[in-house]
Amino acid sequence: MTNDDFQSWVQAHQALIESALQDCLPQPGVAPPRLHGAMRYAVLGGGKRVRPLLAYASGELSGADLGRVTRAACAVELIHAYSLVHDDLPCMDDDVLRRGKPTCHVEYDEATALLVGDSLQSLAFEMLAHPGLSGDSGVQLTMIRLLAEASGSRGMAGGQAIDLESTGKTLELPELESMHIRKTGELIRASVVLGARCGEIDEAGLGQLDRFAKSIGLAFQVVDDVLDAESSTATLGKTAGKDSKDNKPTYVSLLGARQAKEMARELYDFALSALAGFGERADRLRQMADFVVQRQF
Amino acid sequence: MTNDDFQSWVQAHQALIESALQDCLPQPGVAPPRLHGAMRYAVLGGGKRVRPLLAYASGELSGADLGRVTRAACAVELIHAYSLVHDDLPCMDDDVLRRGKPTCHVEYDEATALLVGDSLQSLAFEMLAHPGLSGDSGVQLTMIRLLAEASGSRGMAGGQAIDLESTGKTLELPELESMHIRKTGELIRASVVLGARCGEIDEAGLGQLDRFAKSIGLAFQVVDDVLDAESSTATLGKTAGKDSKDNKPTYVSLLGARQAKEMARELYDFALSALAGFGERADRLRQMADFVVQRQF
Repeated sequence: MTNDDFQSWVQAHQALIESALQDCLPQPGVAPPRLHGAMRYAVLGGGKRVRPLLAYASGELSGADLGRVTRAACAVELIHAYSLVHDDLPCMDDDVLRRGKPTCHVEYDEATALLVGDSLQSLAFEMLAHPGLSGDSGVQLTMIRLLAEASGSRGMAGGQAIDLESTGKTLELPELESMHIRKTGELIRASVVLGARCGEIDEAGLGQLDRFAKSIGLAFQVVDDVLDAESSTATLGKTAGKDSKDNKPTYVSLLGARQAKEMARELYDFALSALAGFGERADRLRQMADFVVQRQF
Repeated sequence: MTNDDFQSWVQAHQALIESALQDCLPQPGVAPPRLHGAMRYAVLGGGKRVRPLLAYASGELSGADLGRVTRAACAVELIHAYSLVHDDLPCMDDDVLRRGKPTCHVEYDEATALLVGDSLQSLAFEMLAHPGLSGDSGVQLTMIRLLAEASGSRGMAGGQAIDLESTGKTLELPELESMHIRKTGELIRASVVLGARCGEIDEAGLGQLDRFAKSIGLAFQVVDDVLDAESSTATLGKTAGKDSKDNKPTYVSLLGARQAKEMARELYDFALSALAGFGERADRLRQMADFVVQRQF
């Protein structure tokens, strides 16, 4: 597959998930209109949709039906979107810019932003419990438990809590890693596994995909730290240099930029090695690994 | 059944749900300890557990296994607890007292309270997706969709949004009713239906239970408004008279206390009429209707 081919695959699937999110979110005219307008504002028209793309790539590997993967991809993106809305609130990161637009609580108000996040989380589970998502209801229940665990206090929300406590503290590398494995890694892992679960995959295959996803999730965060340290706010579409300003530990502050980039490369190599047994079926996931790691450098 | 018998049934099932919530919440030593401590603080040791009791009563009607109903009851109580934590936040109702204790964000901090609510919601869906909850995975998926809809933007969170917008406005009775049907009614309805779904029940029976639950849910809110207007903070365990202070429309402000009490009584009668076809199997639900409506007057 050429790079051009991957570019058009990305664009086609970004359009597909955008359209599916448009449909699954309540229409702006449905009561209560302000809340529904704010939900659409927070989710639509922005973001690279990395998690949905990972689900699609993984679904291609397991021969999954596109409509099924789309529902699972909506679920992970809704969880991601809810976490951004809540993370941006004044009591958390207190950020005013996201995806090049005012954050949800700035455009609306804090109370609405709180309810937007709460409602997006409910909607994610509603999507994943849709009768058309899997031919096997038992597998589907496993998928719901996976997303709940990845989102909750031992997953994403837990990572966020550790992040809050770490502000102004010096973390060692293993602690920083443990925080990021929860904060961003678990949902990326869920995206890959849920995509594959929409098709046919055995336990050994799931184990390899899980290894791939863990590495790529961590690489994603290392790259994020490098971008945050080296990019401008205009390029990022969110406030740049915020972590160092907030005195938060990052891979760059712990290792320096050069070593952080090296670490991202090593994680990338490790991720690719986990795909070795799949042959050509995993080519999209390999391209996604490039996409995640090479974003800007 | 005597009243004494009902009292001991309530106490036994309150103890059962308390113990199940203790077990399903992450232990305080598990990382991140502060978040897990705050989740336990917000959920354990308080509240009448009305929603779990409704699920148990409904489960008795459908001959449900007690362990299964307990999981469903945990799920609805976790959703209820998350909504209280978020509703008490400064950007919402800004309340400092709940169940006789400082609210979660007062005892901990706002960011932690936000993550507590988020994590309790995830845990609720994790509980409902538990492999042991139902013998039929398809029914279980239906139950998950029901809880998601009852919690989300067209249910509880949507009612909260309408409530926010109504502060300082004059609502007509139908608008007030529509708000409360979402804000508290949908979750009470879900509690009754989920309890019954843990056992054997046909569609006609579910329809009758749903009618019962809609009336009792609304009655619950009317009684709440009367209590808020007439009780002291010490009796309620939360700040009394808050609605009128916040200039929020209530059944008491719209109808006056006497007519509000009459309305609660009519809703109670209507609820009981929906149970007529069940015979003795519905006795616990009848007692629960008394419990909900007669709380203090």
